[in-house]
Amino acid sequence: MTDTIERALAEIKFDRDGLVPATAQQHDTGEILMVAWMNRDAVRVTLTEGRACYWSRSRAKLWRKGETSGQVQLLREMRLDCDGDTVLLLVDQKGVACHTGRRSCFFRAWRDGGWAVIAEPQIDPEILYPDRAG
Amino acid sequence: MTDTIERALAEIKFDRDGLVPATAQQHDTGEILMVAWMNRDAVRVTLTEGRACYWSRSRAKLWRKGETSGQVQLLREMRLDCDGDTVLLLVDQKGVACHTGRRSCFFRAWRDGGWAVIAEPQIDPEILYPDRAG
Repeated sequence: MTDTIERALAEIKFDRDGLVPATAQQHDTGEILMVAWMNRDAVRVTLTEGRACYWSRSRAKLWRKGETSGQVQLLREMRLDCDGDTVLLLVDQKGVACHTGRRSCFFRAWRDGGWAVIAEPQIDPEILYPDRAG
Repeated sequence: MTDTIERALAEIKFDRDGLVPATAQQHDTGEILMVAWMNRDAVRVTLTEGRACYWSRSRAKLWRKGETSGQVQLLREMRLDCDGDTVLLLVDQKGVACHTGRRSCFFRAWRDGGWAVIAEPQIDPEILYPDRAG
């Protein structure tokens, strides 16, 4: 298993910070949920555990998506682009992807000269992250 | 027009190289076509001209998608994520997105311990880029 995953990693070209952008897409609807970053360990964890794990640049640590909120992303398939420097995760998103409580992080659209909010939260963020609610 | 686009740019958080990752999605089918990079000028051109323009890191220049191949991406909508550090382009892709002649750059899938090629070229790259064929 480990050797196999090392072969997967060998084809991925990480940047000078050891990261690649990862786009997460809901496998059946095609909805783009979020874009985050993965390092080698995040790829290892994602393939081993079958759920999306990213590298949090702000917290400088591995971030198993949903570890706090419960809103996990079960991995359906990992894909790699032609240049090998960005990955696509087809996932089954439990609940919502965005920390604001919205299904997708891409809830702002450039319309009529402004960033329009095109989706409302489905869950109160304070329910997702009770420890942060103060 | 210019002032308006500057307001759009003000909400985008470019990285230390002045770039953000941009995911291009076919607007009607939901297919992920590619992920590339945009700087401020690429965003300006994309919003002004209504077609996707990226920053080519390898060539260190603006890259109007399709300028050589004719495989342009007409912009349907630009979206911004919650953190403002990555954008999603909903586009209408003419022809194919990938320089290999495939519709999507994400034609490799991690299956059974290897990167499987899951799509074939629709167009010969030598037809897309005749000047490079020699």
